Amino acid sequence: MLGVGDDCALLAARAGFEIAVTTDMLIEGRHFLAGAEARALGHKALAASLSDLAATGAFPRWATLAIALPAADESWLGAFAQGLFALADRYGVDLVGGDTTRGPLLVINITALGEVPEGTALRRSGARPGDDIWVSGELGGAALALAHPEIGEAAKRLHEPEPRVALGERLRGLAHAAIDISDGLTGDLGHILERSQVGAVVHYDRVPRPRAFSGVSHDQLEKDCVLSGGDDYELLFTAAQSRRKDIVSLAKELNLPLSRIGSIRSGASSLEVLDADGRPMPYRGGFDHFAAP
Amino acid sequence: MLGVGDDCALLAARAGFEIAVTTDMLIEGRHFLAGAEARALGHKALAASLSDLAATGAFPRWATLAIALPAADESWLGAFAQGLFALADRYGVDLVGGDTTRGPLLVINITALGEVPEGTALRRSGARPGDDIWVSGELGGAALALAHPEIGEAAKRLHEPEPRVALGERLRGLAHAAIDISDGLTGDLGHILERSQVGAVVHYDRVPRPRAFSGVSHDQLEKDCVLSGGDDYELLFTAAQSRRKDIVSLAKELNLPLSRIGSIRSGASSLEVLDADGRPMPYRGGFDHFAAP
Repeated sequence: MLGVGDDCALLAARAGFEIAVTTDMLIEGRHFLAGAEARALGHKALAASLSDLAATGAFPRWATLAIALPAADESWLGAFAQGLFALADRYGVDLVGGDTTRGPLLVINITALGEVPEGTALRRSGARPGDDIWVSGELGGAALALAHPEIGEAAKRLHEPEPRVALGERLRGLAHAAIDISDGLTGDLGHILERSQVGAVVHYDRVPRPRAFSGVSHDQLEKDCVLSGGDDYELLFTAAQSRRKDIVSLAKELNLPLSRIGSIRSGASSLEVLDADGRPMPYRGGFDHFAAP
Repeated sequence: MLGVGDDCALLAARAGFEIAVTTDMLIEGRHFLAGAEARALGHKALAASLSDLAATGAFPRWATLAIALPAADESWLGAFAQGLFALADRYGVDLVGGDTTRGPLLVINITALGEVPEGTALRRSGARPGDDIWVSGELGGAALALAHPEIGEAAKRLHEPEPRVALGERLRGLAHAAIDISDGLTGDLGHILERSQVGAVVHYDRVPRPRAFSGVSHDQLEKDCVLSGGDDYELLFTAAQSRRKDIVSLAKELNLPLSRIGSIRSGASSLEVLDADGRPMPYRGGFDHFAAP
């Protein structure tokens, strides 16, 4: 590896592996609020990228950071770096290069790179009719925190999401398709349906959610958060029904809930969400990057 | 390679090569003016990254793009993509992934990846006392265009710089150290001196510059542009005196001027610029990313 002071960083890729790469730009006022806590932001920026690697089944190895700051604020940058490096260290990710510049507002761009054995990467396009649909962890917590910042459990989900790195690696050879839920369950499942040219049915009451919703008692908010809220960074995947036992075992081994929330069926891109009585429910669309903030 | 619609792109690296990676963020009002011509901007954004790969001696292969736009302006984006893809196609670079989002101002982040045979990458740290200092092409044209936008020759240098990809590859095994001149001759040479723990002397009158300066007749402006102006994206490299003939031949073969402008000497980081009479000249420092624009 070349030092950060050179024009490029050098990565030693291993034979038999492909390199998975993902790039994400986070903008003040759009992806986070002005005045966001620097340490949490450093964590979250990298977590979002590691989540993309996990959804591909890749083992994270390297990241580059480009950041624009309104001023050379060393203490802010130190706290940001602390959050980022703590997560990077936990997963053995080397920060191999960077570009710090001045700009009128805070912009963060992370490119993360990982390795995946040749020909085994998870894709969005592999879902097949009859597959079960699974999600990890709980959904809706991050969106709940936007409406109720006072709920600590939800706030942690919004500000310090945990990328499902170990799960992603174990899904190779097990899942038919995978994606990370960054834009909301229905929106991200929609990407799988579109790329796989299949439909799906999801049972709303089976979608796991934080206990905090029971204290809020607001059905519409809960539905919007659970079905359409972004930023949870859980993994959604489809797998053959014959693999249910393997997936239940995996959940135990990783100490991470994996919930079967529906199934894939034929019928291009159609998604039906059913309530507890089996009746179709309306739901908000996924996050639109060009909608008004 | 996974489609752009997946969470990650997949790159098939070849055995025996290292991956060189560079990331750069360009911000409206800082790195380019609001209202900059979209096609030229697409070209320049990628050119800056390919120039970094060239300075490492790497063969460019892939790039990712993240872009924030104030609005979903399809015609702007189309022209931008045209400029970017025209350059990418010329060098066989695959655009493997992207992230388009809405933001209050235009921000472009490109991560470019290339390959370099294991152990052969060019670095900033390899300059040795006695080395010649060489630069490709001409310096100061891009900076001249900022002061005199009406000079077409200079404007082309500013808006459509040509990354020295072929030269970079040929410098492996020939140059001791290399860097691309993005922040100005003295500033970027300074990085080599610092990393190599050596000094240098540069002969101002030997630094190649566009003929357009003769029509401007402004000595101070010329000096500032040639010694300290950024954005030319030429390569600066050092090489043993014994390789002069090889370098002259290479210049002919590539049809690209390579000029010997000075030499490396001992004395950590000290840079002396001499005028035609051999007297030391003062010069402005390199570009400071945190200075006022």
